Amino acid sequence: MNVFKKIFTKNSRPLEGGIFFEAIHKILGFKPNNIEFYQKAFTHRSSNKLDLKGNPINYERLEFLGDAMLSAVIAGHLFNEVPSGDEGYLTKMRSKIVSREHLNELGRDLNLIQLVNSKVPSQHFGDNIHGNIFEALVGAIFLDKGYTYCEKFIYKRVIVPYVDIAKLEGKVISYKSLVIEWCQKEKKPFHYDVYDDNGNDGQRYFGVKLSIDNKIIAKARATSKKKAEEIASKRAFFAFQEKMDKKL
Amino acid sequence: MNVFKKIFTKNSRPLEGGIFFEAIHKILGFKPNNIEFYQKAFTHRSSNKLDLKGNPINYERLEFLGDAMLSAVIAGHLFNEVPSGDEGYLTKMRSKIVSREHLNELGRDLNLIQLVNSKVPSQHFGDNIHGNIFEALVGAIFLDKGYTYCEKFIYKRVIVPYVDIAKLEGKVISYKSLVIEWCQKEKKPFHYDVYDDNGNDGQRYFGVKLSIDNKIIAKARATSKKKAEEIASKRAFFAFQEKMDKKL
Repeated sequence: MNVFKKIFTKNSRPLEGGIFFEAIHKILGFKPNNIEFYQKAFTHRSSNKLDLKGNPINYERLEFLGDAMLSAVIAGHLFNEVPSGDEGYLTKMRSKIVSREHLNELGRDLNLIQLVNSKVPSQHFGDNIHGNIFEALVGAIFLDKGYTYCEKFIYKRVIVPYVDIAKLEGKVISYKSLVIEWCQKEKKPFHYDVYDDNGNDGQRYFGVKLSIDNKIIAKARATSKKKAEEIASKRAFFAFQEKMDKKL
Repeated sequence: MNVFKKIFTKNSRPLEGGIFFEAIHKILGFKPNNIEFYQKAFTHRSSNKLDLKGNPINYERLEFLGDAMLSAVIAGHLFNEVPSGDEGYLTKMRSKIVSREHLNELGRDLNLIQLVNSKVPSQHFGDNIHGNIFEALVGAIFLDKGYTYCEKFIYKRVIVPYVDIAKLEGKVISYKSLVIEWCQKEKKPFHYDVYDDNGNDGQRYFGVKLSIDNKIIAKARATSKKKAEEIASKRAFFAFQEKMDKKL
């Protein structure tokens, strides 16, 4: 099949170049092989779809699978990252990371709900839909690409931006305060530029650009100003980590 | 290093050809890369070992990791195996498979306790040591060889011999009764030959050879006669499945 046909095929399965395919590609950071797994991950039970054998097509089974993969990947990360943490510590830290609240936040920040196929209007979903879809997406990645890609995705979307042992342990309360403290000590001007950055799903988003010394150091986007500032601060912190560690 | 040196080195690390290495090799069904992970998986906290940074060396952290990997692999298996099972069903089935009782049985049947490095006599351990060591072993495999080998091991040691959806659902109560029923219908002579087959750890084991038509069809070894007969029957059942399915 040539590229032209591939993009403009009338087949109902969304192909490379299609809106759904490209949205998934962007979220994953790599190309999906079999887009059907992802379609299922974004199909709500209200759509009442059935496969040829009469089994319902929706994300609920994928949620189960994704939850298991998420727990495994986070377990592996914590095991390597905290060699001094005993079993109880590791279990507690993992619960914090995969808490329902945290998963909802992850799903919301990726704006997954905009892709959901449902007969129920999205305002009628409870808050848990964000986390459920996030788990289902992880399950779809596992089926489509295997454990290593699943791990890669979880690193990119969960561990790097959100998982921070010091913060989970309550040792670092806020990266914003660390950044401000450092800038004041170093007598460097800093500025958090907050602006509206809404999606097309009615959900309000905020963008933040953090400038230090009149240069943009980090950007972030989230569902609250505070969260966006914190993510941008964390990014700046890790970019500057060596400098800050020496000075703080 | 030549083979002679490799086997007879005085280094305390057990190498290829050593008793520990070969025992692990046999249990895994493939060669370990880094035997140190497995040494840790079999080290009880009573041995009071510490690494160079002062962190305790014992199997407890590996248990956490292995538990997560086991849950993930079983989730993947059930997801594929039972396409009609919803999230609740899959969760329930997984709990049955990774129940403490079942993991203890797995560890006991592999006689893992004989390899444990401990300052406490093995009779003083509770029953859970069998399952705990089994989980730690899975964790060690993950660190040593990655997810795919972990999955391979769990298939070989858990799923193939023990996981049977029909039985977990309570649809098949006993494979022995299926085998007997089939033999009687087919007018085939059958015989369960049970004998003692003890290890060197004081634990009593039973071997079973199941003959049908005066040919040995399946063998098994377990900690009770009933269990050994059931495992041999299940093996025979799957060997004969097509024939039996047609006749029953």
